[in-house]
Amino acid sequence: MFLFSGILAVLTLAVIFTSHYVTPTSTNAADKKQTKVPKNIIFIVGDGMGMPVIKAYRTFKQEKHSSSKEQTVWDPYLVGMQTTHPDDPRDNITDSAAAATAMATGKKTYNDAIAVNHETEPLRSIVEAAKEARMRTAFVVSSDITDATPAAFGTHNVSRKNKDQIADHFFDEKIGGEHKVDILLGGGMQYFDRKDRDLVQEFKKSGYSILRSKGDLTSQSSAKMLGLFQEDELDRAIDRPKHVPTLKDMTQAALTQLNQDNQHGFFMLLEGSTIDSAGHENDVVGAMSEMEDFEKAVQVALQFAKKDQETLVVITADHATGGFSFGADGMTSETGYKWDPAPILAAKKTPVYMAKKIAGGQSVRDVLHTYIDVSLTAEEILQVEKAAQSGKASSIQLSIQRIFDQRSFTGWTTFAHTGEDVPVYAYGPGKAAFQGWIDNTKQGKNLFQMIESPSTYRP
Amino acid sequence: MFLFSGILAVLTLAVIFTSHYVTPTSTNAADKKQTKVPKNIIFIVGDGMGMPVIKAYRTFKQEKHSSSKEQTVWDPYLVGMQTTHPDDPRDNITDSAAAATAMATGKKTYNDAIAVNHETEPLRSIVEAAKEARMRTAFVVSSDITDATPAAFGTHNVSRKNKDQIADHFFDEKIGGEHKVDILLGGGMQYFDRKDRDLVQEFKKSGYSILRSKGDLTSQSSAKMLGLFQEDELDRAIDRPKHVPTLKDMTQAALTQLNQDNQHGFFMLLEGSTIDSAGHENDVVGAMSEMEDFEKAVQVALQFAKKDQETLVVITADHATGGFSFGADGMTSETGYKWDPAPILAAKKTPVYMAKKIAGGQSVRDVLHTYIDVSLTAEEILQVEKAAQSGKASSIQLSIQRIFDQRSFTGWTTFAHTGEDVPVYAYGPGKAAFQGWIDNTKQGKNLFQMIESPSTYRP
Repeated sequence: MFLFSGILAVLTLAVIFTSHYVTPTSTNAADKKQTKVPKNIIFIVGDGMGMPVIKAYRTFKQEKHSSSKEQTVWDPYLVGMQTTHPDDPRDNITDSAAAATAMATGKKTYNDAIAVNHETEPLRSIVEAAKEARMRTAFVVSSDITDATPAAFGTHNVSRKNKDQIADHFFDEKIGGEHKVDILLGGGMQYFDRKDRDLVQEFKKSGYSILRSKGDLTSQSSAKMLGLFQEDELDRAIDRPKHVPTLKDMTQAALTQLNQDNQHGFFMLLEGSTIDSAGHENDVVGAMSEMEDFEKAVQVALQFAKKDQETLVVITADHATGGFSFGADGMTSETGYKWDPAPILAAKKTPVYMAKKIAGGQSVRDVLHTYIDVSLTAEEILQVEKAAQSGKASSIQLSIQRIFDQRSFTGWTTFAHTGEDVPVYAYGPGKAAFQGWIDNTKQGKNLFQMIESPSTYRP
Repeated sequence: MFLFSGILAVLTLAVIFTSHYVTPTSTNAADKKQTKVPKNIIFIVGDGMGMPVIKAYRTFKQEKHSSSKEQTVWDPYLVGMQTTHPDDPRDNITDSAAAATAMATGKKTYNDAIAVNHETEPLRSIVEAAKEARMRTAFVVSSDITDATPAAFGTHNVSRKNKDQIADHFFDEKIGGEHKVDILLGGGMQYFDRKDRDLVQEFKKSGYSILRSKGDLTSQSSAKMLGLFQEDELDRAIDRPKHVPTLKDMTQAALTQLNQDNQHGFFMLLEGSTIDSAGHENDVVGAMSEMEDFEKAVQVALQFAKKDQETLVVITADHATGGFSFGADGMTSETGYKWDPAPILAAKKTPVYMAKKIAGGQSVRDVLHTYIDVSLTAEEILQVEKAAQSGKASSIQLSIQRIFDQRSFTGWTTFAHTGEDVPVYAYGPGKAAFQGWIDNTKQGKNLFQMIESPSTYRP
């Protein structure tokens, strides 16, 4: 555990309220530019969303909708790219904790760190700055809400692994008498509803609506919400039970609430968290499913910003995952020089879902026939049957994934992250600050300046 | 073969001379912006230079120079990214011919096409537009000068494989009585000095200096030069014999000539061609060597533009190659979450060079000891010895590459290209036109407008 004295000192000294608009005193163009700061900020992270998975999703989407256009909703807003490396004596490839800390606090740290520095002192986050500025705050994620990205934006801890402590922090740490985050939507019920502490009850007593299913998003919606829809991270969208909301459902519910009585603006963190999980598993079906879930949520955010015209939307990734490649060995003059989305579109569930059924005793042929809408070769079925003999769901999963990889020409090099730069997209007032080749700490630095010093802000 | 009637018609109709400067008739800011077109254009392609190989090179360079900064000379000029896909009924991953055609002509075509459309009609290139506008022209590449990229900028052919025809075209096709390209520097002597035709002599008679070695770049330098320094593409920089120039040497020589009596401006194509070749071989040592050779040449171009202030420099890639990944399986808590440049820095020659020595009869231990400056494990040596028993240089090469891949945590997924977007960098007047997420055809469209319609040009 670490001391909160550092952060408390910062909070005491902090400016309590910062107006987001500086009344233009002149019609001079330079002055006008200077005052262009957003009232609301929607910061969006595609966890593990490297460039190749974006390209693959575009192709997948185009084929699915027989579209002539190959484009995601965020592509037109590309402004640059960001570096991702941590400040770590041992590592030069980031994890999600160090990357989220860089973006949330404007400071690099070691892998595993949740908004603390090398001395394990808390690093002030833009969510804390936003709350001090009386902005409303919301986190919408597809992982557990205690996962590295939301954790680093909303809490402080020496390690991302201390999920119970991170959940405690979401309740215990307050700014101006308020919890730091007004709306928490995602997975991770197990870290809140525990034997040693019932944070769900505590949040309820503290005035939060408690949401447990998709239906609650409308019936229980309120200005303060804790919505935890599964025990851990949410299942991949393609596998998700009906009562579990999509990322879009949660985004809409959060924005509707944030936009009511919106005097001081809001800060929202939106994360497509489990693009990364699919990448770690080297599961191209899961990755495309999560990209689709993510894109629909991003579209809601962009539509809000386009209508509102006072909202900055930043869309980026924390790192790439899996060494995913659009094209892989096996392409010949017969197959074409081509990444093929068709086999992925034929999947009705992810390989992890199918593998569980097989490991649970269902026949390989039945499961593959039920959930994959193409005729498989005898050889493909045989390789899954061989894996099934081991009884291990993970081996079965890999054997099914191999079918999709080989048919689509998807390559992977690791079950971990990779270190290349990731793209940055921005829409709305303030977007110019994110242009070009930036360090990932620039995200936090920009947002701090917009929230705390709008009068001196220059794009 | 195809007919040149199409292009001749275009040439006849073409504007013969286009001034690059529109005299500002007003001091109005909007008008000023409109006239901001470059006098000179340096268009730079890193063939096969995807984002991960740039990231790896930054890390390699930082370690080599014990620098605190991790940056290439082009990083600060990132303006966006471009798509790379061809217009091909079979393929959605581009080859270098279709990508170069898109950039050189502003039109997409099929893989293999050298500036021709699906009907095999020639597509007008920016080099042709430049020559019509009396600009001087130069190609500086590390491949053979008949390779896909320079071929698509300077010639037309139904297939990149017709290298003799492409070489013929460089001599035979003229604009306003002049060859299209004044300065040709690279490899590929075999396609010019042939049994059926001696293009070297023809170029000589036509007033070109013929350069065959690095020394000739100074002693034989002139306004018109044909410099072919090896039979095929140039060896990787780390393997290159002393008489063969670096890409920087060639770039300096070309710029010195282009900048003399420079009335109408110039167009220069600079290509780090063999980053791609190293990628196709999955050779990380060769890739880093080529990236270094490329960066030094780009630095010369940027220095020229910074001094000159009338030169636009665009730097991009045609596609990524190899599914190269920064980080790969094998990373553990002991090794760190890290791509490690140290083993690559220990190589004195590429694996292909070492493999040739071994295939030629030298002992595995002697060769590895001579050219790799780290102690290898018995197992690593054994795997090369096993490959050596086959006598096949390609197998030996792969076995040596495995050592570098495993020690550096470099991953590969294919010996072919991959389809993700690639970064775009721009410096100098006109750079704004390249910002954001662009199609690769936008490159050619922008350049056509700058060269042909500077008075209507808007960034």
